[in-house]
Amino acid sequence: MNERILSSGNVQIQRFFNLDTKAYDGGALSTKTKELMGLVASVVLRCDDCVTYHMVRCVEEGVTDAEFFEALNIALVVGGSITIPHLRRATERLEECRNTQHAENKP
Amino acid sequence: MNERILSSGNVQIQRFFNLDTKAYDGGALSTKTKELMGLVASVVLRCDDCVTYHMVRCVEEGVTDAEFFEALNIALVVGGSITIPHLRRATERLEECRNTQHAENKP
Amino acid sequence: MNERILSSGNVQIQRFFNLDTKAYDGGALSTKTKELMGLVASVVLRCDDCVTYHMVRCVEEGVTDAEFFEALNIALVVGGSITIPHLRRATERLEECRNTQHAENKP
Amino acid sequence: MNERILSSGNVQIQRFFNLDTKAYDGGALSTKTKELMGLVASVVLRCDDCVTYHMVRCVEEGVTDAEFFEALNIALVVGGSITIPHLRRATERLEECRNTQHAENKP
Amino acid sequence: MNERILSSGNVQIQRFFNLDTKAYDGGALSTKTKELMGLVASVVLRCDDCVTYHMVRCVEEGVTDAEFFEALNIALVVGGSITIPHLRRATERLEECRNTQHAENKP
Amino acid sequence: MNERILSSGNVQIQRFFNLDTKAYDGGALSTKTKELMGLVASVVLRCDDCVTYHMVRCVEEGVTDAEFFEALNIALVVGGSITIPHLRRATERLEECRNTQHAENKP
Repeated sequence: MNERILSSGNVQIQRFFNLDTKAYDGGALSTKTKELMGLVASVVLRCDDCVTYHMVRCVEEGVTDAEFFEALNIALVVGGSITIPHLRRATERLEECRNTQHAENKP
Repeated sequence: MNERILSSGNVQIQRFFNLDTKAYDGGALSTKTKELMGLVASVVLRCDDCVTYHMVRCVEEGVTDAEFFEALNIALVVGGSITIPHLRRATERLEECRNTQHAENKP
Repeated sequence: MNERILSSGNVQIQRFFNLDTKAYDGGALSTKTKELMGLVASVVLRCDDCVTYHMVRCVEEGVTDAEFFEALNIALVVGGSITIPHLRRATERLEECRNTQHAENKP
Repeated sequence: MNERILSSGNVQIQRFFNLDTKAYDGGALSTKTKELMGLVASVVLRCDDCVTYHMVRCVEEGVTDAEFFEALNIALVVGGSITIPHLRRATERLEECRNTQHAENKP
Repeated sequence: MNERILSSGNVQIQRFFNLDTKAYDGGALSTKTKELMGLVASVVLRCDDCVTYHMVRCVEEGVTDAEFFEALNIALVVGGSITIPHLRRATERLEECRNTQHAENKP
Repeated sequence: MNERILSSGNVQIQRFFNLDTKAYDGGALSTKTKELMGLVASVVLRCDDCVTYHMVRCVEEGVTDAEFFEALNIALVVGGSITIPHLRRATERLEECRNTQHAENKP
């Protein structure tokens, strides 16, 4: 679907998408730290698609389960019980990511 | 004012405040990373008091200006231009924190 | 799914879930009043899962249809037309709850 | 300021203000319960002016301190630590209301 | 489902629905401009059902693709990357509306 | 304060500010229509600084009082009574803008 938006011919939307991608590039802060920030921001703003995206990216950056749940706990405390359904779905996505990783690592 | 809330005799509110404090203790993730997450969450949820609190804590944890602005850029991209007034005030607070640091470091 | 989150080993998340449950225990205010507050908060924050949860709990606490729609009207006025899709789904859930009640009460 | 808005000649805004006022009239639920709902909704949506308004109305409806803090605790658990600055200011307003009540009750 | 809500017998909810409908009637501003405002408000508040509704109404009012994407770009800049999943679904809806229009216009 | 943020050396923040400015340039939609959209988005997201900014820009683009209040009514219906304090302050700003205009137009 991003392709359809980008093919709209609206140059400013394309530039925004570009800025969005670049925001998570490593710099003074590592990509891993930035993706964790993106995850926490997505949980407190309660966007499942965004949570899934950053969850997958965090797994790719080597975030451990202990790190995930400390990050999710901050989002829970800041954002309150209204974030719990998103935490549930985030945990479900994490389990799927881990299962995929295990399957790939099998000889 | 926290004291007045805590003196209300409501034990559950006290427990929440306790959980809130502990969420930023170092564990699998460092306190510095957690305070940066708290900062990003506060900007996207647009709470000036919370931004100021985490800004001061980040300065105490040794966050550099380059790190701050990369964190604030993520908040800006995720949360949009509606966060700009909060970014302005965060930058103002940062400048005050840096001035205080410089004054303290003078011989 | 709550079980998976709780089995993460993150003690603070467990404590938060505990505080969340206790917040609706009867005290100076009745459980019924508190669940109605939880319903209104869930509608204005626009979380369908939370609305469904408190809707079911309110039905268990004996909330009548007239009470429901007065509570939903407050949420609608405070939160605006953006809450209407959630009101629709809340009404659908209510109807399902009432149908279940009727089926159970049949001789 | 409401007068200036109402003197704008926009009939629909006037009708909205009218609906807003009527939403808290006693019906199947009492005005006291409705004002407490308005308070919780205002805290989770983080509007200080709205919190102050419903706080004053709750005091007029005879809400006790224990009832207030149970209601504020629900708002805190649902809405998270981002609501704490508003809880602080709500507590400050409550203290002012109570001081006014004590002054009025002195012989 | 609106019918079920309206059949609840709650007169105030009915009046709110009435005000909601009338807000988009042409006056000093045209219906087209008002529906575009409703679209932008729905995107920044991130409500898919509301986005779909105003998208369909905008198509009926003759909004062109270039106009749509300029409106969506404002919503994206104001509301940030958290609105992107809603932009994606809005673009999908737009494509469906255009396909329907083309099918209807075929001889 | 924008200057301080822009002097941070963070190029991406500068690019975002640039996109933000360009979003309101006239194109398929006029600047006037776009500023009205910015106003409505700012009211429903409840940001006073943003409301003031777009209010001033709308006045510069020749928006009439009748147009303003129709736009504010849409924001009120979509966003609910929680937006009323922002409507009040918007009305206050409008009055100031009009007084300034009258003073400038006096011979």
